[in-house]
Amino acid sequence: MRLVTYESATGPRVAGLRDGMVVDLNLADSRVPSCVKQLLAQGPEGLRRAEAALAAGQPMALESVKLTAPIPRPEKIICIGLNYADHAREGGHELPPVPVVFAKFSSAASAHERPIVLPRVSQEVDYEAELVAVIGVGGRYIPKEEALAHVAAYCCGNDVSARDWQLKRPGGQWLLGKSFDTFAPFGPALVTADEVADPGNLRIQLRLNGKVMQSSNTNQLIFPVAELIACVSSVCTLVPGDIVFTGTPSGVGFALAPQVFLKPGDVTEVEIEGLGVLRNPVVADK
Amino acid sequence: MRLVTYESATGPRVAGLRDGMVVDLNLADSRVPSCVKQLLAQGPEGLRRAEAALAAGQPMALESVKLTAPIPRPEKIICIGLNYADHAREGGHELPPVPVVFAKFSSAASAHERPIVLPRVSQEVDYEAELVAVIGVGGRYIPKEEALAHVAAYCCGNDVSARDWQLKRPGGQWLLGKSFDTFAPFGPALVTADEVADPGNLRIQLRLNGKVMQSSNTNQLIFPVAELIACVSSVCTLVPGDIVFTGTPSGVGFALAPQVFLKPGDVTEVEIEGLGVLRNPVVADK
Repeated sequence: MRLVTYESATGPRVAGLRDGMVVDLNLADSRVPSCVKQLLAQGPEGLRRAEAALAAGQPMALESVKLTAPIPRPEKIICIGLNYADHAREGGHELPPVPVVFAKFSSAASAHERPIVLPRVSQEVDYEAELVAVIGVGGRYIPKEEALAHVAAYCCGNDVSARDWQLKRPGGQWLLGKSFDTFAPFGPALVTADEVADPGNLRIQLRLNGKVMQSSNTNQLIFPVAELIACVSSVCTLVPGDIVFTGTPSGVGFALAPQVFLKPGDVTEVEIEGLGVLRNPVVADK
Repeated sequence: MRLVTYESATGPRVAGLRDGMVVDLNLADSRVPSCVKQLLAQGPEGLRRAEAALAAGQPMALESVKLTAPIPRPEKIICIGLNYADHAREGGHELPPVPVVFAKFSSAASAHERPIVLPRVSQEVDYEAELVAVIGVGGRYIPKEEALAHVAAYCCGNDVSARDWQLKRPGGQWLLGKSFDTFAPFGPALVTADEVADPGNLRIQLRLNGKVMQSSNTNQLIFPVAELIACVSSVCTLVPGDIVFTGTPSGVGFALAPQVFLKPGDVTEVEIEGLGVLRNPVVADK
């Protein structure tokens, strides 16, 4: 099942995709919550009910609705750095012995086809193609062996990064450079985990204006999804709708010679095998 | 006015303090939202209405309610590092030319009298007394000159920090060491900004088991509250209920010789002039 969230007069509502159309799941079955976080919190039983609602509900044209981020405001956007060996090396880093974890503020969450806005205060905005895992049922101290049962869905993500803010400010904290508004597009839809045979073996690619800039496979992840969930949940309680950006392979713009940074008019596309294409135009700030 | 949030059968509800009693503001005047974020979003007019409701409403005994964090789940917990010159020096750092900004996940939010839980996976948990500013009306690109008008309230905060996770992991990111569950107590209540004559001139102190460990004044902040808001809002949109931990003065435990770390049975108290005392017992994880 593929889940999206669209804007309605009463706020964001979760919907499913069927034959290129959109079905409001709560209108089809009132036991399905209209809020995606509440749906994810219901676990597999809730998703089964949602699937029946998707089959039975009234479809709307995709063009007739405005999609928001598949989870409009995740409580946590958890990000992993240096999680592909080739990318760690291109940035001049050692391979990390434990996951490197940082955050984006959830105000950065954005959607398929929504513009990446280049901030006035940065000249070095870069792309990063990433597999995103979406937490369903939450928890603390989740063992690695049980971790994938806590993932409700997967999708593509672009960990957009202002390199001047990420790398050239004192204190070494990456947060601000990663948290500009619109810097966390993910989607195009949440693909429920039952449709992803092996999240640890998916081709992943980033195209800039149609040209392949990053091309790898999630089998190159140093710390796979299950280990990331075990690590972060040893620190804090995960809740439904938390999302994990799992790291990016080599080929990012700042490591190229000459360096490549995003400019108005560019289009980024992140494609992951089975998860679709997340496309975002790049625009200047107003 | 002093605002708290308490747990009710239908979820958290905002209340005011009057003569040591608690008044549910929404029950006193239904135009006052029951959610503190919605109240803060109404700006000064909403706070004036809340004040009238506080004067008119039915008081409950403080002991009869269970307080939660004054904002149960801030969208953003924004933290500033190295913002007192003496603390930067005790950690061996240069004075930063621009604010050093990091985050705590909002799952770390906690309240007055709630225990600080020492995680099983850390042996080096430390305290940090901090002035906390609470955003009322949000915004982006807020000029320094207008920034204090966006602060609805102030309170005490303890930026509890697992030094082993903050400082001894690869990648240099402070997020995880700062984000353990219960590591962001703030309160004891939100003190509305009209009651704080000058947030840049408040005595601040941390006591551990009654002994003064940190003692300074917010006039020692390298970047005052207005500059912090201007900086962070140049990156991302601030929303009602976002909170800013503004940094800690010298005297933290890891910089002492011998080092002092929190242990079960300890009690931390953060006291800031005019903002009350935030007290938290320390317990072992289950």
